[in-house]
Amino acid sequence: MHIHPSHSTVHRPGSRADLAVPFTRVHLTNGETFDRYTTAGPGSDPEVGLAPLRAAWVEERADVEEYDGREPQLLDNGRAAVRRGAAREQWRGHRARPRRARAGRTVTQMHYARRGLVTPEMEYVAIREGVEVDVVRAELAAGRAIIPLNVNHPEAEPMIIGKRFLVKVNANIGNSAVTSSIAEEVDKMTWAVTWGADTVMDLSTGDDIHTTREWIVRNSPVPIGTVPIYQALEKVDGDAARLTWEVYRDTVIEQCEQGVDYMTVHAGVLLRYVPLTAERITGIVSRGGAIMAGWCLAHHEENFLYTHFDELCEIFARYDVSFSLGDGLRPGCVADANDEAQLSELRTLAELTSRAWEHDVQVMVEGPGHVPLDLVEENVVLQQDWCHGAPFYTLGPLATDIAPGYDHITSAIGAATIAMHGTAMLCYVTPKEHLGLPNRDDVKTGVITYKLSAHAADVAKGHLGARNWDDALSKARFEFRWHDQFALSLDPHTAESFHDETLPAEASKTAHFCSMCGPKFCSMRISQDVRDRAARSGAATDTVVREGMAAKSAEFVELGSSVYVER
Amino acid sequence: MHIHPSHSTVHRPGSRADLAVPFTRVHLTNGETFDRYTTAGPGSDPEVGLAPLRAAWVEERADVEEYDGREPQLLDNGRAAVRRGAAREQWRGHRARPRRARAGRTVTQMHYARRGLVTPEMEYVAIREGVEVDVVRAELAAGRAIIPLNVNHPEAEPMIIGKRFLVKVNANIGNSAVTSSIAEEVDKMTWAVTWGADTVMDLSTGDDIHTTREWIVRNSPVPIGTVPIYQALEKVDGDAARLTWEVYRDTVIEQCEQGVDYMTVHAGVLLRYVPLTAERITGIVSRGGAIMAGWCLAHHEENFLYTHFDELCEIFARYDVSFSLGDGLRPGCVADANDEAQLSELRTLAELTSRAWEHDVQVMVEGPGHVPLDLVEENVVLQQDWCHGAPFYTLGPLATDIAPGYDHITSAIGAATIAMHGTAMLCYVTPKEHLGLPNRDDVKTGVITYKLSAHAADVAKGHLGARNWDDALSKARFEFRWHDQFALSLDPHTAESFHDETLPAEASKTAHFCSMCGPKFCSMRISQDVRDRAARSGAATDTVVREGMAAKSAEFVELGSSVYVER
Repeated sequence: MHIHPSHSTVHRPGSRADLAVPFTRVHLTNGETFDRYTTAGPGSDPEVGLAPLRAAWVEERADVEEYDGREPQLLDNGRAAVRRGAAREQWRGHRARPRRARAGRTVTQMHYARRGLVTPEMEYVAIREGVEVDVVRAELAAGRAIIPLNVNHPEAEPMIIGKRFLVKVNANIGNSAVTSSIAEEVDKMTWAVTWGADTVMDLSTGDDIHTTREWIVRNSPVPIGTVPIYQALEKVDGDAARLTWEVYRDTVIEQCEQGVDYMTVHAGVLLRYVPLTAERITGIVSRGGAIMAGWCLAHHEENFLYTHFDELCEIFARYDVSFSLGDGLRPGCVADANDEAQLSELRTLAELTSRAWEHDVQVMVEGPGHVPLDLVEENVVLQQDWCHGAPFYTLGPLATDIAPGYDHITSAIGAATIAMHGTAMLCYVTPKEHLGLPNRDDVKTGVITYKLSAHAADVAKGHLGARNWDDALSKARFEFRWHDQFALSLDPHTAESFHDETLPAEASKTAHFCSMCGPKFCSMRISQDVRDRAARSGAATDTVVREGMAAKSAEFVELGSSVYVER
Repeated sequence: MHIHPSHSTVHRPGSRADLAVPFTRVHLTNGETFDRYTTAGPGSDPEVGLAPLRAAWVEERADVEEYDGREPQLLDNGRAAVRRGAAREQWRGHRARPRRARAGRTVTQMHYARRGLVTPEMEYVAIREGVEVDVVRAELAAGRAIIPLNVNHPEAEPMIIGKRFLVKVNANIGNSAVTSSIAEEVDKMTWAVTWGADTVMDLSTGDDIHTTREWIVRNSPVPIGTVPIYQALEKVDGDAARLTWEVYRDTVIEQCEQGVDYMTVHAGVLLRYVPLTAERITGIVSRGGAIMAGWCLAHHEENFLYTHFDELCEIFARYDVSFSLGDGLRPGCVADANDEAQLSELRTLAELTSRAWEHDVQVMVEGPGHVPLDLVEENVVLQQDWCHGAPFYTLGPLATDIAPGYDHITSAIGAATIAMHGTAMLCYVTPKEHLGLPNRDDVKTGVITYKLSAHAADVAKGHLGARNWDDALSKARFEFRWHDQFALSLDPHTAESFHDETLPAEASKTAHFCSMCGPKFCSMRISQDVRDRAARSGAATDTVVREGMAAKSAEFVELGSSVYVER
């Protein structure tokens, strides 16, 4: 799963034999190394799945039980499966019986944290993030961070989402009624994680939803999120008016048993908010939001996700599924940003956050969307204030609407800005946003664009150690260690191939110049000369200058040939 | 020069027959039109050049004279031309004798503005920007904006750079010792302008510098900038120590006579600042900065651009060449941002700004570079304060150093942010930054990335009318006018080709759905339904909801088929 030959995996040990946290070690040509947070996992044979890394940790707490689980139904894979009489490409690995909390127990990381317990999961993320484990526990207990880990997804490596920690990136994948296959989606998940996706959402809306998800979860080293209303809608033939709490509840349990780690729930789309969207330029653009708005209008009843929210909390508490409270009324263009519909829903999401916390269920809150740059900060400030610091998870936001085909960039601008102000996780946007479904290349472009945005925010926040990565790469650049510059890049292949377009020879990768200025003159070289001369003199640079600039002058001319490489 | 078949050119007339400002009119399928600021010019046959649009305006002021000009020298085209005994591909159009101010006259737009004169150039930009002409005059007079227009570049269409106006984008082109030809560079210039570059800098450092520039200037409808020290260095065989004020001065006059509109001058790299860069991670990264630092060190003398600055002002005043005061000590990595070297130089640039203004010479001030997001705003605030509001012109800045190959994006984040806070023009960064020379595709990607960043800043600043463009596109999106969505895009071709990857049929461009949700369910559709029902009822939406939601509910179910398109 390494993206470059100079990368290897090292493990930092924890307090117990079965706890060791992988990092990607970059081996530099000057003998130094640089260790990076890694999300890629050990790699897997899709038909076998990943090893259940965390199974022993879950079991030893003795608060879960295995049980027979819900009877699978053909409709779980959609109407095409019903017509065929069979699902396609069932996952062929061993399928364990699902786990859930024993009666009367709560198995969430928030619950443990609030009781003062330090779990191996907490220790794992503390090592990953380079912080004291009690910081992790305290942030979880306060609801300011979540570790989204279903007891039925033991393959996942623990990770934490909260503003005190590194900004995370989610990649969306998933088939639709129009296109794509199971194998493609599993490949997209693996590909997204290889390039650094911290979580992956499976937003499938086409056929074989259940089976696609099974393959994805069993092979994913990162938490998997879903939007259960999408599958529920498939079960009622795409007719939102026919949705019921019972169909939805059954779908949620189906997904809890498979191991989905967090679920987007649009419980804040209240009946009275729907008309607030009528004067907008783009109305409701969230698919889940539109489904629930349609249901509310059709029945003239309050959103059943809102009225059954406590029951949902009870279910989530038994599997440690985290809420991602969906912003169904998020703005779909900059004109609609921060309007009454959006902010009314946010107030309701704040209320729901508190209700979930009463059940010790972990919560993050979703945010927009499309927001002009001057209104971005307000989104985080209000969310953090109203939702008592629950992690914010935003989609971009796009800072302008005029560049379809470049919306990974229009949104990277908003994403870096909103993350700098305290957003904990960013949902990527690919170049295909608004135009089509992302392919493999789009997934990579989206992930890398969002990794650089998240990192820019980490640097701006002064996050411990974040800038070390920039500095390591900048040093390599200054010292003309081209191979190291590539190896340290978010995308070594693209960096190297761009370099090679102009100067393909291997020799030019050790040359002390580049194609921008050519071999004759290089600004980097003269800077090195300034430094070398200061070092040779053995004195502070400014002292050198004050004491004997004239003498230096003669020396400089003499050393001229080391400054300008001759043609 | 139109990028889409739905685009045409319209002209808004001014107060005189020879003054009409072109706009790009986008014809929409619903019969509406949308007019966009355009930079593309009328197009030209490279061997003939563009018509001298502005020649009559310059002449009628009766303050310029034609003269024989400087005798061309073979060395103007570099050592290869000297060896060959001839320049390559001399420009074959008619070469006018150069103009300059009559003795004792000043011909800068700032000079006219300060004397209360409204020039056709000012009126032209007022129409382009949609503001009163006196706003233009007042901003020019105060030094808060510039119209960079050499009297010897009558082909250029007047444009204005200042924070009160639309944020502008510059594209760098130019050959190097390593690669590229004259034809390629002219093509890159035209290509950059086609996609919206507001100015172009010719940074050639290879052979045929003079001739390449002649072709570029004669065919450019936008102002052309250069860094004269690059050519001067070629004339002294690449040896910075051999540079003299005389060689530099002669090169500046050569370029003034050709029609260069603004020149980057690294007059702020003072001898005493050079040692401040010794402890940096990446030292001096500006090529011009390094050249001048090398000269200062070699001679132990003060920067000759600083000591001869008033003489330079006198020259610029005779041609109306604008200063772009170069930040030779800008940071080359986020670690070096906002340090003593950078800010010391900025103080000197502020001093030089005031000195230039004493000569009525127009000035903008260059800025970084590489800056972490939390330090971006400080750069504009200090520059605007110290330089009394002179336009700021920044290169990015890059918000992180870890993503070579994606530095158009790392810098677009910083660029949008710094522009929102008052930067007037952004110098683009292409995906090849730090790795190689941009090709045609990179130029396009760089320009479009920077146009969207500049526009995001215009929207955030609440610039008059800026958001109309977003709103027009968002309306087209909401109403499934796919063709209009493409036509309104910064890059219609990419938007349409991305759409067609998933849904190529022509029918799908009029379909009321897209590949993301498929034909069965679409969130946009339900929003339209909410609105339609409100409209039909003839009442305010919230009243409708309050008065008869139950009745609406029945109607909604009945109308179900219009919400969900059947498979």
